[in-house]
Amino acid sequence: MRASVHRFTMRDPGDVSELAVAISAGKVNPAHIVAVLGKTEGNGLVNDFTRGYLTQSLKLLLAEKLGQSMDAIGEKVIFVFSGGTEGVLTPHYVVFSVDPAAQPIAQTPTGKKTLAVGTAFTPVLAPEDLGRIAHVNSVAQAVRAAMAQAKITDPADVHFVQVKGPCVTTERAAEAKARGAQLVTTDPNKSMAYTRVAGAFGVAAALGELPPGQIREDAFFSRLDWFSERASISSGVEVAVNEVMVLGNSAAWNSDYVIAHRPMTDALDINAIYACLADLGIAALGDNTATGLRQIAAAMIKCEPDASGYVRGQRHTMWQDGDINAQRHIRGAVGGLVAGVIADTRIFVSGGDEHQGPPGGGMIALVAKAA
Amino acid sequence: MRASVHRFTMRDPGDVSELAVAISAGKVNPAHIVAVLGKTEGNGLVNDFTRGYLTQSLKLLLAEKLGQSMDAIGEKVIFVFSGGTEGVLTPHYVVFSVDPAAQPIAQTPTGKKTLAVGTAFTPVLAPEDLGRIAHVNSVAQAVRAAMAQAKITDPADVHFVQVKGPCVTTERAAEAKARGAQLVTTDPNKSMAYTRVAGAFGVAAALGELPPGQIREDAFFSRLDWFSERASISSGVEVAVNEVMVLGNSAAWNSDYVIAHRPMTDALDINAIYACLADLGIAALGDNTATGLRQIAAAMIKCEPDASGYVRGQRHTMWQDGDINAQRHIRGAVGGLVAGVIADTRIFVSGGDEHQGPPGGGMIALVAKAA
Amino acid sequence: MRASVHRFTMRDPGDVSELAVAISAGKVNPAHIVAVLGKTEGNGLVNDFTRGYLTQSLKLLLAEKLGQSMDAIGEKVIFVFSGGTEGVLTPHYVVFSVDPAAQPIAQTPTGKKTLAVGTAFTPVLAPEDLGRIAHVNSVAQAVRAAMAQAKITDPADVHFVQVKGPCVTTERAAEAKARGAQLVTTDPNKSMAYTRVAGAFGVAAALGELPPGQIREDAFFSRLDWFSERASISSGVEVAVNEVMVLGNSAAWNSDYVIAHRPMTDALDINAIYACLADLGIAALGDNTATGLRQIAAAMIKCEPDASGYVRGQRHTMWQDGDINAQRHIRGAVGGLVAGVIADTRIFVSGGDEHQGPPGGGMIALVAKAA
Amino acid sequence: MRASVHRFTMRDPGDVSELAVAISAGKVNPAHIVAVLGKTEGNGLVNDFTRGYLTQSLKLLLAEKLGQSMDAIGEKVIFVFSGGTEGVLTPHYVVFSVDPAAQPIAQTPTGKKTLAVGTAFTPVLAPEDLGRIAHVNSVAQAVRAAMAQAKITDPADVHFVQVKGPCVTTERAAEAKARGAQLVTTDPNKSMAYTRVAGAFGVAAALGELPPGQIREDAFFSRLDWFSERASISSGVEVAVNEVMVLGNSAAWNSDYVIAHRPMTDALDINAIYACLADLGIAALGDNTATGLRQIAAAMIKCEPDASGYVRGQRHTMWQDGDINAQRHIRGAVGGLVAGVIADTRIFVSGGDEHQGPPGGGMIALVAKAA
Repeated sequence: MRASVHRFTMRDPGDVSELAVAISAGKVNPAHIVAVLGKTEGNGLVNDFTRGYLTQSLKLLLAEKLGQSMDAIGEKVIFVFSGGTEGVLTPHYVVFSVDPAAQPIAQTPTGKKTLAVGTAFTPVLAPEDLGRIAHVNSVAQAVRAAMAQAKITDPADVHFVQVKGPCVTTERAAEAKARGAQLVTTDPNKSMAYTRVAGAFGVAAALGELPPGQIREDAFFSRLDWFSERASISSGVEVAVNEVMVLGNSAAWNSDYVIAHRPMTDALDINAIYACLADLGIAALGDNTATGLRQIAAAMIKCEPDASGYVRGQRHTMWQDGDINAQRHIRGAVGGLVAGVIADTRIFVSGGDEHQGPPGGGMIALVAKAA
Repeated sequence: MRASVHRFTMRDPGDVSELAVAISAGKVNPAHIVAVLGKTEGNGLVNDFTRGYLTQSLKLLLAEKLGQSMDAIGEKVIFVFSGGTEGVLTPHYVVFSVDPAAQPIAQTPTGKKTLAVGTAFTPVLAPEDLGRIAHVNSVAQAVRAAMAQAKITDPADVHFVQVKGPCVTTERAAEAKARGAQLVTTDPNKSMAYTRVAGAFGVAAALGELPPGQIREDAFFSRLDWFSERASISSGVEVAVNEVMVLGNSAAWNSDYVIAHRPMTDALDINAIYACLADLGIAALGDNTATGLRQIAAAMIKCEPDASGYVRGQRHTMWQDGDINAQRHIRGAVGGLVAGVIADTRIFVSGGDEHQGPPGGGMIALVAKAA
Repeated sequence: MRASVHRFTMRDPGDVSELAVAISAGKVNPAHIVAVLGKTEGNGLVNDFTRGYLTQSLKLLLAEKLGQSMDAIGEKVIFVFSGGTEGVLTPHYVVFSVDPAAQPIAQTPTGKKTLAVGTAFTPVLAPEDLGRIAHVNSVAQAVRAAMAQAKITDPADVHFVQVKGPCVTTERAAEAKARGAQLVTTDPNKSMAYTRVAGAFGVAAALGELPPGQIREDAFFSRLDWFSERASISSGVEVAVNEVMVLGNSAAWNSDYVIAHRPMTDALDINAIYACLADLGIAALGDNTATGLRQIAAAMIKCEPDASGYVRGQRHTMWQDGDINAQRHIRGAVGGLVAGVIADTRIFVSGGDEHQGPPGGGMIALVAKAA
Repeated sequence: MRASVHRFTMRDPGDVSELAVAISAGKVNPAHIVAVLGKTEGNGLVNDFTRGYLTQSLKLLLAEKLGQSMDAIGEKVIFVFSGGTEGVLTPHYVVFSVDPAAQPIAQTPTGKKTLAVGTAFTPVLAPEDLGRIAHVNSVAQAVRAAMAQAKITDPADVHFVQVKGPCVTTERAAEAKARGAQLVTTDPNKSMAYTRVAGAFGVAAALGELPPGQIREDAFFSRLDWFSERASISSGVEVAVNEVMVLGNSAAWNSDYVIAHRPMTDALDINAIYACLADLGIAALGDNTATGLRQIAAAMIKCEPDASGYVRGQRHTMWQDGDINAQRHIRGAVGGLVAGVIADTRIFVSGGDEHQGPPGGGMIALVAKAA
């Protein structure tokens, strides 16, 4: 099996021409696409419709290219878009493809581990199970399934897990209420946060970052020292099940890429970025003109404004700003830092990282061409 | 002579309690203060009143401490505040003091150059001279005067020049019009930009960065390759003359600090930041826990969104964003980068840098305790 | 001929379910739709992609319902969306349909005039003609063609003319430059403004609001006392020709609706709103519970922040606000005023009204069920 | 006794020159000033420092004019500023003065009621009492004291009560915690909301709008049908006690002004505005050029975005907007409506009106020259 990574930019969220050209040129096989991860130029908040617009545009393109319905595309491809290209960030999307037939594993495996991709979907959860232990367990099971599909056995080989999970909607809440079922919350925004926590804990359980038996509902939002350092979770009304993509390295694949990750302890953790580069064998200490940086094929960051109101002992103003949302502030700052280190602004920077990386920090994952 | 640098933070722009405490404790002599440079938590745009609020609060404090009028304080101390603490940036101000009596230069000078501070004021310019060659020449002359006061003879020893210049106001325009005088512009916002360019060219002329004879009015805003890499210019209706502060190193001083600077070629120029640290003898390549970083006493940055709409070949969205001003975007990104390198968020990051540093880039200047 | 007006709301710009239901229920014949005018919940500025998203969603729906391509839909239906539902405004769109066969005009016409709709398209203009007299004349000719289609002979019967015109793009500018052609501007944003002025002057010429011979290019942006009080112009890179919709009253139609309009002299011109209601025979002076108001089927407003910085002698802060764009401010204020008068928040409020209504003011047009 | 009302505008929050001129001209006696109510051009949210800046500027002016300390001014004059001049609103402040000596009441009172002003301050409340029934009772008592000072006996003669109350701060919370005291909340923002509710309920109790015995802590934020239709409450860390100003009409005064108010049922309640004008004898139905409107000396509005997400059955987008805060939206819309009715943009429009007027609505109070 071979995993491929293609990165495209766009003029606006309705512009999928670069992918169209790549498909026409035979560079991307649309039937092999399993997931698309990207940044769109909205505000990344509730009223950001650039994510839906890009999703619709990509489904339209793939439906046409594959002769399938847009719904059929939505059922097999995971689309995860984070809004907000604050500061120097570039709107872009990364297409992950898997060619199951390509270059079967040599009889005598080299043992070299390369990029492995697995996806899985949970069953539909009852509204009353959203944001609860049942949700955590469901995600954990899907992560294990995606790992199996990716032929990764050692959790240490998993470096990035994207989960996109459903939340309570007005309709789902009404249906549950009619049955007398008790919801964690009926507020869609709060439900989205619960879903992110359930996803993070699910990933942590599957990867052994937290003992599964230890995860309790009263730890949600409170035990911030319990987290997954590989989870990246988003939530939205537009999905009905949890969609999971696992990225890691496996000797069962012969991809041209490898992946690494590091937790970031705070918004200034440049040391983690350099450590992640070192994991990939890229030497660029203090020098972003180093040629090794050109191997980078995708960069994913999770971050958040420190809840204490301080970064390294100094006050920040992100939480008090009534003009710019705190998530926009932090994405711009951490995006600027990572872009300066790797000399590339095509970075997936996502906020809202409850239990995803250390509190006030987050994580960085980099996919690079194997040396 | 000895120059001192004290950095203070505040809860809000009306909070000058840290300086009050330092004065009461004898750590800062209010009579020695020559300039205050700071970042306030406004938007940094036209309707940012945090700059005026902090100025008024500081004048109130110093007037009380020195038994002088607030106007008298305003005439001798240069107050320059940049609004906008985007991302991780911390509201703070840096107080520059000069003790003329302290520790007179040893009879046998060591030759060691330490922080030198000089200030100067231009005469009042006629409204019709604002934004013209007369303005350039006037600033150049004041920069030379400030250098002389700072006992700096070699322009290479100058590392940061802050100029705050006047612009056309409705009243000044009316008065000029009544005399039949011709203004460059009657629009206060445009006038502010012209004043910034005149200031930058004035600094460049005084420091020999541009041959004075070469500077022409038709180069304003067009010859972007003509710039000063040490100039930081602001403009506002509240000043009547150009106020100039020169920071450099001089063997005639025995300060505890030194200063260095580097131009930044673009918003990702991490190499320039590390080079500036190296100039100061601070080794922290890729490691912001390095103890040398704790010597930093003040950090000043100029930056701007690249006018091309691209950074290192990739599109940015700063100029198209109707929700967040482009200057706020770039301050957040470059502030995040510098803060990550030096592990400190108390950074003076200022945008609007026409002819101040390379186009799309800017400059960094760092003051540090001498090793 | 009969013109119909259907108003729909949506949950987000991708939600066209209300129209889908109306089509399925036989209430709207998709083949009869000639134009859709709406407000989407973006910022209404350059980076507002909600307009494109809604357009794509509507084209998808109509393409499916009519068995035509999305491009074919785009060529015959005019889509005009204004972003920004500031304050109390409701995201919605108004579908204008024309049934050419329905209830042919009685042999003995009653003379009663009812809603008439006409659309027309200009030929493609050369880039060098955009924003020039050729552009004005082209729009004027299309307005006359749309009037003819609407069977309106007296310009006084025209009450609203929507024009959506093309602007210079990077590609069009390059092509023109290669031919040695001279453009009014190569800046897309400025070109959009020129197109709006050319459209407004074109409408004014066709309706006799300005003597055609009087319109000169040097009046663009300067003779603000020259305007059309029925023109509503938008511009965008997405159209290649000027699309024109004329709304008026004509005895040749037997619609259930009539239309009226009034210029607004400034943002506080409540008298104009009541006058427009009176024109429609709706009595609701100071009482928005009046039943007559329920007859209103569509409300269209043009407005702008007064360039002087004052409204009725008092300063406003719209132009100085770095956090909220001036157009967003004025839409919220005038939208709140009109909504309060008519007790309905589904109002098309559009800013950027150069030469469209009195400077600092604008216009109001109301479509209502005939009494 | 005579109450006077003077309205001033300013160029920025540091500009108090109009009041300075009025004092110098003898039009305002600085010793008579009891309260200043105003709108400043900040964002009206947590990081709005224009309120503090104007307060400091006014204290500076009055301290100088009266030869008193700024602290002394702050202890006797109530300063209440609401940030946010969205849409057409004008930054301005209204100075309320009371001349106790002027024109003593005739022996044979005419029975004509004119503007009466009373102020009062509560004692310092313990942090654990903030936002509780003790707080409600304390405000109620101060309102009664202010009514007594204003010589108003019938609560129906009270038309506007401004309360500015303290909230929990980090310091106050720490002090309480050290004593083992239990606070309603330690979050300053939540505490501000509790203080507003306690203030509203206190006013309602004093005026008999709610039976005092009925007010319970579990009604805070939940029984939205319990409200005062004359209360306008603000809260902030800068005050230590509740400051109360009562405005009403009393036969014991011979002011040139009278006051009226009306509750507003929602953001479109134009009928309430016209009713309030009618109460004052101003006829201007649908005509804002009516000369009677020129009698208006001050306009105060409370409003809020409807929590349901709907206004008159149609969706609004205020709560979902990540770019513009909901309070800014509603102030712009309701401000635009009132300004259109009264032809004046100098309106005190304040949001955040929990239990102040009907939910989703608010109130309007107008002070006018007596006919």
